[in-house]
Amino acid sequence: MSVISSALSLLGWDQQTHMPPRGIVARSQVSGRLTKNMFELSVAPELGEYLEALEGDRSLSIEEQASVRDLGKQYRRRKAIPSELIEEVAVARSQAQAAWAQAREKSDFSIFQPLLTKMVDYARRFADYFGYEEHPYDGLLEDYEPGLTVAKLKTINEPLREQLVPFMKRLATEGTAPDTTPIEGSFDIDTQRRMARRALEIVGYDFESGTLDDVPHPFTTTIGFNDVRVTNRYLENHLTSGLYGGLHEGGHALYNQGMPESLYHLLLNGGASNGIHESQSRMVENQLGRSLPFWKYFQPILAGFFPQFSDVTPEALYRAVNVVEPSFIRVEADEVSYNLHIMLRAELEAGLIAGEIQVADLPRRWNEAMEQYLGITPPNDALGVLQDVHWSMGYFGYFPSYMLGNLYASQMAVKIRQDLPDLDERIASGDILVLIDWMRMNVHQFGGIYQPDELMNKITGASLDSAHFVRYVQEKYSDIYGLS
Amino acid sequence: MSVISSALSLLGWDQQTHMPPRGIVARSQVSGRLTKNMFELSVAPELGEYLEALEGDRSLSIEEQASVRDLGKQYRRRKAIPSELIEEVAVARSQAQAAWAQAREKSDFSIFQPLLTKMVDYARRFADYFGYEEHPYDGLLEDYEPGLTVAKLKTINEPLREQLVPFMKRLATEGTAPDTTPIEGSFDIDTQRRMARRALEIVGYDFESGTLDDVPHPFTTTIGFNDVRVTNRYLENHLTSGLYGGLHEGGHALYNQGMPESLYHLLLNGGASNGIHESQSRMVENQLGRSLPFWKYFQPILAGFFPQFSDVTPEALYRAVNVVEPSFIRVEADEVSYNLHIMLRAELEAGLIAGEIQVADLPRRWNEAMEQYLGITPPNDALGVLQDVHWSMGYFGYFPSYMLGNLYASQMAVKIRQDLPDLDERIASGDILVLIDWMRMNVHQFGGIYQPDELMNKITGASLDSAHFVRYVQEKYSDIYGLS
Repeated sequence: MSVISSALSLLGWDQQTHMPPRGIVARSQVSGRLTKNMFELSVAPELGEYLEALEGDRSLSIEEQASVRDLGKQYRRRKAIPSELIEEVAVARSQAQAAWAQAREKSDFSIFQPLLTKMVDYARRFADYFGYEEHPYDGLLEDYEPGLTVAKLKTINEPLREQLVPFMKRLATEGTAPDTTPIEGSFDIDTQRRMARRALEIVGYDFESGTLDDVPHPFTTTIGFNDVRVTNRYLENHLTSGLYGGLHEGGHALYNQGMPESLYHLLLNGGASNGIHESQSRMVENQLGRSLPFWKYFQPILAGFFPQFSDVTPEALYRAVNVVEPSFIRVEADEVSYNLHIMLRAELEAGLIAGEIQVADLPRRWNEAMEQYLGITPPNDALGVLQDVHWSMGYFGYFPSYMLGNLYASQMAVKIRQDLPDLDERIASGDILVLIDWMRMNVHQFGGIYQPDELMNKITGASLDSAHFVRYVQEKYSDIYGLS
Repeated sequence: MSVISSALSLLGWDQQTHMPPRGIVARSQVSGRLTKNMFELSVAPELGEYLEALEGDRSLSIEEQASVRDLGKQYRRRKAIPSELIEEVAVARSQAQAAWAQAREKSDFSIFQPLLTKMVDYARRFADYFGYEEHPYDGLLEDYEPGLTVAKLKTINEPLREQLVPFMKRLATEGTAPDTTPIEGSFDIDTQRRMARRALEIVGYDFESGTLDDVPHPFTTTIGFNDVRVTNRYLENHLTSGLYGGLHEGGHALYNQGMPESLYHLLLNGGASNGIHESQSRMVENQLGRSLPFWKYFQPILAGFFPQFSDVTPEALYRAVNVVEPSFIRVEADEVSYNLHIMLRAELEAGLIAGEIQVADLPRRWNEAMEQYLGITPPNDALGVLQDVHWSMGYFGYFPSYMLGNLYASQMAVKIRQDLPDLDERIASGDILVLIDWMRMNVHQFGGIYQPDELMNKITGASLDSAHFVRYVQEKYSDIYGLS
């Protein structure tokens, strides 16, 4: 499984980076067939027997026990779905994706609605097959964030909403938005590419174990041990897109570069969860990359690439990259509003899966929630309910990981500051690796051994508490926006 | 098998082009495992049963019959080798490669000798397992050039030797070597890269179905239908290296880009033989690329990349790229001496496999043959018997394909000129595709359907005759060197 998975990763990476356009037909056949092989291995009766024999065997190492736990869970969940349903969903998914793309292009939800209804229906059936204790959405969340439930999400979301929604309003009404002119202008793409490469080196990304390529939609992929590849894109009129995109993907890549070889063989190289993975990217992108100490170190480096920054102060750059503004599109959202975009989606998903919300009502519900959380109403569905690809692929339960990443990172950052009281000074002086080493030691090296809640308790001594994130953004942005 | 083969091709291509250095350990595991799977499929009892049922079935299409023929041959040859021997050879091969690399570096044959003796011994045993009618070397040649035997090789080599050896001497003593100063100088690598790309476009290489990447040792690889990738290298002080390297690989790639999808599924996309594959690269590199009509068209294009060529005539460029000079290293040899390098190797190989030549005698035999064929004696074994990697890998019987490529190309060129009497004028005016289309129609589209001798008869109405090549080089170089 590890071999096929590595080959599939390479096929996928190549498809996005180097594959010639007309190669897609042959590529789909190869990837399709190997994906099928991979699936068959994951539900093979022999594997089931091995897992049964090994489950609960305390003589196994902690890594081996974790591998048995994860493979066993995957085995049972996949076996729970009738095989004819799997093929049916695969067909519906490609139809749904095509319909979604068309609907978004024309900003016409009605094109997507029948296929989305189908995908929601499949997701509800999957939830039943997987099983759950309280809420059907719990059965789906488990795929992306082990242990997460609607009930837990509620305890996370409610304080967030209560604090963030009024805070957003205060920033807009009482605050003074930072000046973004320092980072405006046109920036040579190739120089941006070299700058992103340098930024990745600075955060400890190992180019002996990785690559950096251009793509339209950046991602990070693990081909195998010591082969973890980053992709990025650059916009001529948007300097920070390439910089923060690179740092974000670099954060993901550092997680995988920091795992020992044994975890790769045990298929524990996916990390503790999607949310924990996202926390590593957010740690590098936001907690580090959007901090004042980072800019104290990085401003002269940036000026080495773009001399016009020689006379711009680190403080001015720090402020320019930290603007908070309600906007329609999740992927462009700032640190404060981002989580509100996610809460909106998670609540709609839970309602759809529970049958409390109908697909036909989604556009209206979406816009109402946008108004309630962010105070803005999308002018059309392309900028609203149709913006994300996830539902067309049947990924219900995926979105919360994005938010959890921000929350995990903030909670870890509190612990990091306890462990490293002089962190800011060290970062400002260029010792970025002190932070990365902490992450390697506390997060990366364990890969997928621990479940996310176990890991958070191990690292911070407590389960996830969104108060840390709230405190982080309130302090940071009150200062930047001059709130008293 | 087609799926695994495609994945293996991509893994191999990536390893040479983009894989980060430390990824090699994981990569070897993945490639090794899939190679093993591929081997197992090729000798699977079910496959044997299918092949037995299908062999001689005249209701199959001609393509299907060819696929059964090739897979059957591979099945029987692989089954003929005891499986424990295969693993033993694999171990010896990696030792032999390491010893060869060290021996070449130190120019010390004694380091390689014991391992080479082992590899020769394995090759002799393989020949016995495969079986042969007249000469044990025949049993090995079959892998690379179906139907080729020592007896046939003799009828090809002897007239070649009789004509080429004295002709080389005449060029050296009576001829006037062309002036190479027009192509000397230092040339920006990135401009060379763009020039090679342009040259590939000119010969009809489809970048929608291919890529061009940098590597130290250029090769072409087929990932799948419509995905045929070229690699190349550029030397700052050697403009023609990148140009002719690109055209050579482009010729290989055109062959695979010109095969229909059905041949890929039938595993007939390897071409008729190594020799026929090489003929396609030589056709583009030499018959086209080193011709005067090509330079009439390409000179202004070259001058577009490197303005210093604006005042150099096509004739001067044509002459400068066609220097004949005895040299030690095969891969750097010119059109005339190249085949002599191969004959030397083929004769030594046949002697080794027949047990008539001992490994210990190889350096002396090599140097004697060099003196006899080219009139020069290598100053050391690194520039002599140790220069090629092939024997360390157990590739005995491979070298003749390189020579056959030149011979096939010359014979095809005679037919092309009959079919297209105005070929030179059309090429000079930029209609390169008239030549490529002929190759597509007569060679490419058939992939591996026909055996090489069948194909040559189908195309030219005759079996391979080295007289065509002799006439080609005698006419071309007598003119360039001013022989009467």
